[in-house]
Amino acid sequence: EKNFFLMAGPCVVEGEEVVMKTAEQVVKICEKLKIPYIFKSSYRKANRTRLDSFTGIGDENALKLLAKVKATFNVPVVTDIHAANEAAMAAEYVDVLQIPAFLCRQTDILIAAAETGKIVNVKKGQFLSPEAMQFAVDKLRQSGNEQIILTDRGATFGYHDLIVDYRAIPTMQQMDVPVVLDCTHSLQQPNQTSGVTGGNPAMIETIARAGIAVGADGLFIETHPNPAQAKSDGANMLRLDLLEGLLDKLVRLKEVVNTL
Amino acid sequence: EKNFFLMAGPCVVEGEEVVMKTAEQVVKICEKLKIPYIFKSSYRKANRTRLDSFTGIGDENALKLLAKVKATFNVPVVTDIHAANEAAMAAEYVDVLQIPAFLCRQTDILIAAAETGKIVNVKKGQFLSPEAMQFAVDKLRQSGNEQIILTDRGATFGYHDLIVDYRAIPTMQQMDVPVVLDCTHSLQQPNQTSGVTGGNPAMIETIARAGIAVGADGLFIETHPNPAQAKSDGANMLRLDLLEGLLDKLVRLKEVVNTL
Amino acid sequence: EKNFFLMAGPCVVEGEEVVMKTAEQVVKICEKLKIPYIFKSSYRKANRTRLDSFTGIGDENALKLLAKVKATFNVPVVTDIHAANEAAMAAEYVDVLQIPAFLCRQTDILIAAAETGKIVNVKKGQFLSPEAMQFAVDKLRQSGNEQIILTDRGATFGYHDLIVDYRAIPTMQQMDVPVVLDCTHSLQQPNQTSGVTGGNPAMIETIARAGIAVGADGLFIETHPNPAQAKSDGANMLRLDLLEGLLDKLVRLKEVVNTL
Amino acid sequence: EKNFFLMAGPCVVEGEEVVMKTAEQVVKICEKLKIPYIFKSSYRKANRTRLDSFTGIGDENALKLLAKVKATFNVPVVTDIHAANEAAMAAEYVDVLQIPAFLCRQTDILIAAAETGKIVNVKKGQFLSPEAMQFAVDKLRQSGNEQIILTDRGATFGYHDLIVDYRAIPTMQQMDVPVVLDCTHSLQQPNQTSGVTGGNPAMIETIARAGIAVGADGLFIETHPNPAQAKSDGANMLRLDLLEGLLDKLVRLKEVVNTL
Repeated sequence: EKNFFLMAGPCVVEGEEVVMKTAEQVVKICEKLKIPYIFKSSYRKANRTRLDSFTGIGDENALKLLAKVKATFNVPVVTDIHAANEAAMAAEYVDVLQIPAFLCRQTDILIAAAETGKIVNVKKGQFLSPEAMQFAVDKLRQSGNEQIILTDRGATFGYHDLIVDYRAIPTMQQMDVPVVLDCTHSLQQPNQTSGVTGGNPAMIETIARAGIAVGADGLFIETHPNPAQAKSDGANMLRLDLLEGLLDKLVRLKEVVNTL
Repeated sequence: EKNFFLMAGPCVVEGEEVVMKTAEQVVKICEKLKIPYIFKSSYRKANRTRLDSFTGIGDENALKLLAKVKATFNVPVVTDIHAANEAAMAAEYVDVLQIPAFLCRQTDILIAAAETGKIVNVKKGQFLSPEAMQFAVDKLRQSGNEQIILTDRGATFGYHDLIVDYRAIPTMQQMDVPVVLDCTHSLQQPNQTSGVTGGNPAMIETIARAGIAVGADGLFIETHPNPAQAKSDGANMLRLDLLEGLLDKLVRLKEVVNTL
Repeated sequence: EKNFFLMAGPCVVEGEEVVMKTAEQVVKICEKLKIPYIFKSSYRKANRTRLDSFTGIGDENALKLLAKVKATFNVPVVTDIHAANEAAMAAEYVDVLQIPAFLCRQTDILIAAAETGKIVNVKKGQFLSPEAMQFAVDKLRQSGNEQIILTDRGATFGYHDLIVDYRAIPTMQQMDVPVVLDCTHSLQQPNQTSGVTGGNPAMIETIARAGIAVGADGLFIETHPNPAQAKSDGANMLRLDLLEGLLDKLVRLKEVVNTL
Repeated sequence: EKNFFLMAGPCVVEGEEVVMKTAEQVVKICEKLKIPYIFKSSYRKANRTRLDSFTGIGDENALKLLAKVKATFNVPVVTDIHAANEAAMAAEYVDVLQIPAFLCRQTDILIAAAETGKIVNVKKGQFLSPEAMQFAVDKLRQSGNEQIILTDRGATFGYHDLIVDYRAIPTMQQMDVPVVLDCTHSLQQPNQTSGVTGGNPAMIETIARAGIAVGADGLFIETHPNPAQAKSDGANMLRLDLLEGLLDKLVRLKEVVNTL
């Protein structure tokens, strides 16, 4: 029976060491557990709360590192784009283009991503109903691209919290696309006064288990060897040395779910 | 390994036939699947949207039917109370007193329920954080009752929808109480213009699977031989003939969850 | 032109001195500003977060103090009830029976309140749409009482915040009842970890101005000579010495609103 | 005393006739009522729900029409941009660049807008707290632009509704910027199954009155000679012939508010 697939890696391409080390470890774990793996890292962050937040090491540098991961470990890689004119550039290096949640309604970006012919992973806006993602899917299909993934990353619940609406997973699967649950950003605590988004990594396992149980096709988990020193989303990333234990549980859960 | 327990039955005590038939069937299913079973039915509905909604067959009649279920099938029974002065009366007939979600902050009702010595099941208000249920637990414990169950039935999400926040289950379990997920009322669509609360029973399995996966101790599922003709909550109850199939899946899921 | 009316007083009947002092001051202010005044104080608090919170000085003591306010200052008084069997008792002392927001769907309480023949003020549940208050109005009318007030006290917005939906005021006025805006409880910050509900009294004027501007018939403002020492809702009550300045502004706003 | 200013016009530049006719009428009304006026129309829509929705008449055509409005009626004009590389182009034609709510966290767009030296109007994301707009303001200021306007257009309230949180207006004014209330988009009913965003124009006056009462510096109102035939946002725009009556009331309200 089919296992779930995993999109995982450090939030942002911080530097070669973190990227290669994380990729190596996750590749090893996923081979062992027979989890199809897509390495994820953002080549640049475009919507950090504060101007003095880290945004990247330079677009080309970062994209080349993603290509190096791909070449070294023979895994597909995914990164997010933030404007229509980034699609073609990123597509030269990666296998999957990801559309950030805030941008999931931006038609130009969706079309540009679709036209690269790459797989397009659209994150559901925190403000969007699962049903409304049909319109994002339609925009991609009508632009000639049928390789679509949808990812849920939680729904706005007051100013400072998100809730995962698990009804979204079967609802979006009815659009004939694989659906991923983002276990990292679903746990964000947005709009903190510090300008640093908060999190609750102790709940990652809870969020992920429920996702697998309801039939999610994939999981998205940001992970880092040392989240406390990470340059973005440190509050939510899973410590890399905890990943195997978590995935091992989820694989066993998935085996049963496949029989239900 | 320990199975989850089930609170199930028709929403309201409509009459002897429905009650006895439902109890008989669910008892049989739960014996087969080794699920500890508590028969649930309200002896009266106190917060129907409209005055012309069905509220019950008379308190004493209904409570006696609950006692008959208990005697006939040798299962514990649960019913909800709506005022402090109902606690003692209901306690003569049932094993578990349930405090409705809207009333979970009413200190007098909690104390009265606690003082009966019966198990008290408090539903988390749709407007309450999981953490705030600690105060309900404290009120019961400080009234001398340690037999407490907490039940989640969804969180207010706009005027017309509820979302289950699965973080609530481990959060409330940290209060050293069993936590139940109400798969029926979590799917209500409140505030419909018709004055009849809507629902989405096609999602019951999704809601339940996620609950078991995150470690819920029990499930609450209203079921009826013919929901379309039920006198309350027809939009959300599970058709009785679908219950066994659902529970069978959930038991298999629980077996794995117990090993994680 | 008609002025708005005011329901105001200390949250709970703490003792004779606070009650009489507050009533005297507010009566004086309202006479000066030609604001019809209804003295408000709860004779008992029934849904405090914690069991060790202050709940009252004894029901009869408190109700007699309310009657003393009425007799001394010749103003109507309002108090809230928490169970059907409190309606008749409270009705002996007060002019308006108030149904708390958490209890606005409890049919027994609504009927009992209606049957006293007193004016009934129903607070809209934080989880209820404005439109759904039609059903509360219907329950009262079908119980033979046409003297109905509806009060908005904010809508659930995540676990820790409320927002006032000002569309609720004209929506509920279409039910042919006066509509009050509760400027105190709309600013609550519920579910605080301390078990003490938070607030934001600096926003009272903002909340009240908007209410008058959209045509609210009345305002509800809890006030206390020294909120920091109040025994309930200290975080939200307006300091009594700030009340006149606030009301003066609101009266001037109302004069223009009446001409629009 | 200072009057509020108005940003108004048809949602999108549909064609010369609608644009010029609307501008002419609104200019006349605003001169009469002494309301500083900024003509608003989008030169292109970038986030329509469906791919077959109207998006514009061509960027250059539309921008030239905005310039024609500016030249003909001697009023400043505002339009929204959707990507960093649109900022410089739009800045050649308009006085105010508007950042759409979904894009208010996109640092590149904010910087590009700031660097044009034009006034920048940032709409608060439906998912953002008012306090968090400080970070958008900081990004603009740190990019050398002090001419900033913030606009509230409602907060996400479930999937299908928005609520205006009027606390946002004084909160954002504390950032030393003028704050505008968008009375049109605050009334959107998003995520409709039809793919056409719904609305409730009967509530425009309620929304606007409350905004003026709490001290909003400006109002944003989309208006169209015939909203039923408009090519975007027809469900929410105000019929042009109703605008003067509405503004007349709001000016009278503002006069009193200025004295409070």
